[in-house]
Parts: sequence; C-alpha cells; structure tokens
Amino acid sequence: MTTAATSWVEVPEGSHFPVQNLPYGVFARPRQAPRVGVAIGAHVLDLAGLAQAGLLPGPGWFAAPTLNAFMAAGPAAWRTARDRITELLADARHRRQVEPHLERQAAVELLLPFEVADYVDFYSSRDHASTVGQIFRPGSPPLPRNWLHLPAGYHGRAGSVVVSGTPVTRPRGQLLPAGAAAPVFGPTRRLDFEAEVGFVIGVGSPLGAAVAAGEFTQHAFGFVLVNDWSARDIQSWETQPLGPFLGKSFATSLSPWVLPVAALEAARVAPPRQDPPPLPYLRCEQPWGLDLALQIMLNDQILARPAFRGMYWTSPQQLAHATVNGAPLRTGDLFASGTVSGPGPDERGCLLEMTWDGTRPVMLPDGTTRAYLEDGDVVRITATAPGPDGTTIGFGSVEGRVAPAQPVDNPGHPQGA
Amino acid sequence: MTTAATSWVEVPEGSHFPVQNLPYGVFARPRQAPRVGVAIGAHVLDLAGLAQAGLLPGPGWFAAPTLNAFMAAGPAAWRTARDRITELLADARHRRQVEPHLERQAAVELLLPFEVADYVDFYSSRDHASTVGQIFRPGSPPLPRNWLHLPAGYHGRAGSVVVSGTPVTRPRGQLLPAGAAAPVFGPTRRLDFEAEVGFVIGVGSPLGAAVAAGEFTQHAFGFVLVNDWSARDIQSWETQPLGPFLGKSFATSLSPWVLPVAALEAARVAPPRQDPPPLPYLRCEQPWGLDLALQIMLNDQILARPAFRGMYWTSPQQLAHATVNGAPLRTGDLFASGTVSGPGPDERGCLLEMTWDGTRPVMLPDGTTRAYLEDGDVVRITATAPGPDGTTIGFGSVEGRVAPAQPVDNPGHPQGA
Repeated sequence: MTTAATSWVEVPEGSHFPVQNLPYGVFARPRQAPRVGVAIGAHVLDLAGLAQAGLLPGPGWFAAPTLNAFMAAGPAAWRTARDRITELLADARHRRQVEPHLERQAAVELLLPFEVADYVDFYSSRDHASTVGQIFRPGSPPLPRNWLHLPAGYHGRAGSVVVSGTPVTRPRGQLLPAGAAAPVFGPTRRLDFEAEVGFVIGVGSPLGAAVAAGEFTQHAFGFVLVNDWSARDIQSWETQPLGPFLGKSFATSLSPWVLPVAALEAARVAPPRQDPPPLPYLRCEQPWGLDLALQIMLNDQILARPAFRGMYWTSPQQLAHATVNGAPLRTGDLFASGTVSGPGPDERGCLLEMTWDGTRPVMLPDGTTRAYLEDGDVVRITATAPGPDGTTIGFGSVEGRVAPAQPVDNPGHPQGA
Repeated sequence: MTTAATSWVEVPEGSHFPVQNLPYGVFARPRQAPRVGVAIGAHVLDLAGLAQAGLLPGPGWFAAPTLNAFMAAGPAAWRTARDRITELLADARHRRQVEPHLERQAAVELLLPFEVADYVDFYSSRDHASTVGQIFRPGSPPLPRNWLHLPAGYHGRAGSVVVSGTPVTRPRGQLLPAGAAAPVFGPTRRLDFEAEVGFVIGVGSPLGAAVAAGEFTQHAFGFVLVNDWSARDIQSWETQPLGPFLGKSFATSLSPWVLPVAALEAARVAPPRQDPPPLPYLRCEQPWGLDLALQIMLNDQILARPAFRGMYWTSPQQLAHATVNGAPLRTGDLFASGTVSGPGPDERGCLLEMTWDGTRPVMLPDGTTRAYLEDGDVVRITATAPGPDGTTIGFGSVEGRVAPAQPVDNPGHPQGA
C-alpha cells in the first residue's frame, strides 16, 4: 500500500471520495462567499483556506466562485495541485495544519462548479441512437446514415445548466396532440431525463486551429455527471429541420463534483471496435473508453444501470470532431456524451427508451408505474469507476425534483410583469 | 429642427452615424486597454474618458473591455446615458470639454462589442425558408409543417462569434461527394455567407420564468448585423437528425456597432400578417417589423439588397418563444434573425439561394462569376434605417475575408502539437 492509499481523514465504507479521487467543486459556508474545495469522504477540503495558509500554491485559483481560473491554468498546475493535496491528506504529519480546513459536506452548499462557456451535447451511444431510430422511424434503418462516420452533436443552452439539487420546473411549450392539425400550448406531457457523462475544457484553443484527438489531456480538465432533461412532445414538434431547441433548453443538471482526468486513469478501457474505421482525424491511439457504472434512481428506486464503457464514440473523438472545422475552445466548454444506454433492457438511460415513448410504462419496485415523469418525482443519477490500488471512486450524484409547470392561463411572465 | 438634430461634430454626408444614432462599441487606441465608445460621424467618442472627467455617470460601465456591464444596467440607465451623450454632442457649449475625447475611427481598433453568453440563430424569413425547402426537398411542401406556428431556431456556438474584419478560415470537415457511399475529409467546397440582423440581451431573466413578447424593450439592449458563415456541404451531411453543427460553428461575424433599441424607433413598421394567427404567447401588440435596408457586397460589388421589414417572425416573438419553456436570459445573449431574404431575385441573403445551391452561378458587375465563395473573397454586409427627423441611420458594416483552409494532409492541430 502506497502512502496515498489512505488518508488520515476518515472515509466511510462505500464513499465515492477516497483519497484516490479528489474531485473539485465549489462550496459556500452559510453566509460566506463561494470557494473551491475537494471532496474527501464526507468532507470538503477548503482549498482557498489552504492557499491562504500557505499550504497550497495558486494565487486566486481557489478563492473564487468557479473553477474556471484553476481549469485555465493547465495540466502542469493541475498535476502540482493534485500531488500536493494528496500529500496533505495522506501524510498524517499535516493533520494538525490541514484539519481546520475541513468542513462536513452536509454543512455547506454545493454550487455549480464552473461557468459554462459553450455546451455541446453528443449522441454517442449506438444502443440509444438505434432504439430512438426504431421508435421514431419504424421501418427505416435505425441509425442515421452519418451516425457511424461522425459523433453527431448539437449546441445546447449554456445558460440553462444548473447544479444538482436545483428544482426543474415542468416546461411549457407547443405540442401537437395526436391527430391534431395545429399545435396547442401547455405543459409537457412527456417529461424525461437523460443520463449522461460530460467533460469540461480547461485550456482553450484559438479560432481556426483543430485540436487532435491525441491532445485531449492537454485541454480536458475533468468529467461530470449530466442530466439532460428533455420534453419529448415539445422536442418532436420542433425538431425538424433545425434539431433540438426548447425541448432541451429549459434545464440541464450537473453533478457538483468534477473528477480530474487523472483520477480516471484506472477506469480507461478499450472502446468498442469501430466499423467502418473512422476518418484519420477521428482516430485515437490511446484507449479512451471509460469503465463507469451508472445507476439511475427514480424516487429512491433503481430504474436502470447503464454502462458507459460501451459508448461508441469516445471523448477525444468528440473533441477532435467539434474542433476540426476550426471552432475555438474556451475554458468551461462542456461536452456531454448523449444518453448512456447499453444493449440490455435494464441499461437504458432515459424513459423514452425504457417505455418505448410512453407506450409501455415501467413498474417500479414499490408497484407504482411511470410512462414519463410526474410532478414531485426525484431523479438521481450516480456513477462509480475503478480507482487506483483496487479502490472504487465515484461522481457522487446529479439529482433533481420535478416542480409543477407555471399555470397555463398565464401566457407570459409568471411574475406578471 | 430640435437641438438634437445636429452635432457640433462634423458628420460626413451619407454617414451611418449622425447624432440620432449613437451606437455603442468597444475600441482600443494603439497599445491601450479596450474601452466603450459611441460612433459619431467618422469619430468614436470615448465614454470611459468622459466618465473619468465627470461628464457622464456610470462607474465601471465604460472603462471595460465589453459592453456587458452597461447592458446589464437596464433601460433607465440606457436612457439616461443616451440623453446625456446626445446633449454633450448636440450642444456646442460642451465642445471644449468633450472634443478631447473624440478619436477618428480609422485610428483605433474596433473590437467585439460584447461577450456573447448564448447564441441562438432563427430561421424567420418566409422567403428564405421556402426557397431552401424547394432546393433541398423538391416536390415536398416548401415550408416545414411547424414553420408558420413557431419561430424555428437552434443554438449556435457563442465562442465562435468574432468582430467584423476577422479573417474567416475556410473550414475543413466531412463531406459526402455526390454519389459516394462514404464521406471524405477536406475543405468545404460550398462556403457561404448569411446576411442576418441580431439583437442582444441586456437584462437577464431567472430560470423558470417566461419573458412575454411585450417585455422585449425591458430586456433587449440593441441590434447588430450578423454574418452567419455556413459550409453547405458539411451542413448537409451532418444535419440529420440534430440540426446544424460544424457547418456553422467555425465563425459568426458581428458588426462592431450595437444600435440601441431607442435609435430604431422611427424604423418600426407593421410586420407581415400572420396566418394562421400564432398562439397567444407569440402575439405582440406593438409593431416590431423593422424597416432595415440591407446590402450585400462581394469584393465591393453589390450582390443583393434584402429588406428586413418582410421578416415573418419579429424579434419580440423570437424572444417570447425562446423563453416560453423557462429558459433563462443572460446579459450578452445573442439572437440572430436567420438569413434575411425577400421575394425578389435581388433580395436573397445567401449564395445557397442566389445560385440554387451552386447550380446557377451569379455574375458580378465585373464579369466574374460565383457559385460559392472563393479564397480571398471579401463579403461586406451593411444596413441603413430611417432615423428621427427624416435622417438616415445605419449599422456600419460586418465584413470578412475568406482565408485558405489548413492543409488537408494535416489531420489535426495545424501547429503540429
């Protein structure tokens, strides 16, 4: 066992946050300004406090309301900080100095960890794309004709990205009732979640320059869990010809903890074989499948356990594709994987798939059934991964409760302004 | 003639910037930090200098590299500032104090006027949407079935928005050659522009709250010209099922000047009649058609003169639609109109329409022809509008030169990192 294998901080059995993980987040003590911290067991380590005490380098990185300045500092700074934090938490000789900077996670508020620059959402699970194709285009080939050639994606609304725990108000919009000639206005009747994994950019790139797949670790800072809430009826009426818009833009939830790329080294596996072979700019020598075990809970009951390792397109391929036309990267750019679904019936990452667009409701262990989400429902997505030294690390969770829609008879601003 | 009808600053005949206009921008003197200014004739008035000299209120709004802080200050602050700047430029008694804060526009660099939060691109010209439908779906109804019910739109890449004058590198990507079974990688062969008009949000709105069409002037700060550069071959291969992505995300150019909403009062006209009548949330009592005369120049030769007043969906309707699901607004959110095209053959706002997807090249006055843009081509879009007192005001221009693509044999980063 190496020095780093245990911490003098007590880490409860089954915690997602042993000393091998050390994910970054932003927290606030009651009535205090937000600052950067690291999760360790049931605690958060106050990095701003450590830096102020001279125990950690990084002027201005940690006494900040977002991770963006630290993310922009680049791989050498990330490595130095992670090594030092590991040392402070692993070596009991630091306990006296460091312990005053620990807070119980339950005693602080966890905030959105970074300011999102652009948000791109991919569609990289072959099982998800195939099932959606069968549901919406029965009799046609299940995959769009470009799907095996490129990681399909689109831009989502960065301003709608919220941290886990933020209530999600049932969105209103235009819906086309079955058989109707014209749309009606009302709350979505087909509210869904999508379990996804995202990565966030630390180091940007200039306009006009493509970023190669092999440069992934020079730009990507870490990974988060994502719930890409979706209103299937709004989405299906609006989606031709310009793609998803209001059916997605009302809310996207993120886990409060960002797992550094370095924490996931032991989780890297070979991705599925790609046939046809992708164009050269999409080839990636290193294995960037990730062995993440997701779990989706609805009102504390397990709905599904999708495996991320089966995703057809990998994160470096997504990054190479998104920049091959010279689009620049900025610190805070968020790239989500698309719904994580596997081949099995218990591996589907959204209700659209699980219920075949609401036509085959699922039954929960307590006997209740769901076609789509109801008001008051709580969706919680968690994920774990192999860590170093045989440990298990995790993302914590991304969670949200469905709040009722604004009244339909108020066509505009709910505050009546 | 009112006091405000003329300025003691000389305004050249035909200038877009009489004292009735006063658009805001960000400029930098050589080797100095960017600051906020206002265009007057061939000059820019240094608002940071005026504020520092105590001639203008607004601590911190103008000694800033973007308009965002001033835009966030809201309609009362915008009105107070505009009234005071008008007074300073109209009343010759202020000349001695104000004149030291004038710079020739030719002597400064004009920068991107605001930091873009989210970028939404609409598709609001009926003529454009109909022509595109005929080109891409001959034999089908020219308009998508939802088009007359909602202002169709999608999110674009905010990080790719650049100021007029920025070279636009011909993007590379996946293209499907005619008759081919698999895509190839290479520079776009069908590079296009799209002449558009955008509005930018000053005052944001909270998550979960729709913004009514009638609240437009409480949120929108001003209008800009937009060139939404497009690679038609990349776009057509990728666009199903998620909409435009890399065919658009390589660059979007903005005019350096933002016309305040108040400057366009005299340009407001009734929009086209809408049949079927839109759903209640899309109704707008006030007339928000805008009588803007666009002109598109290719290498200094006139290509087209589209009229913005014919746009089917208005800016307040676009705003109401984009927020009806509770999506929040942020300062800097940019909403572009979509290609501005009219019914006439000389009113088409992009080459896709003018050349029927390259099959009917246009001939320029000098005898050269174009199917799509060639390397070295310069596209310049300008627009004028009726101002107060019978004046004509304008946007200046948004301009860009096409730079050659990165070499095809470099599949990744052009710097070879």
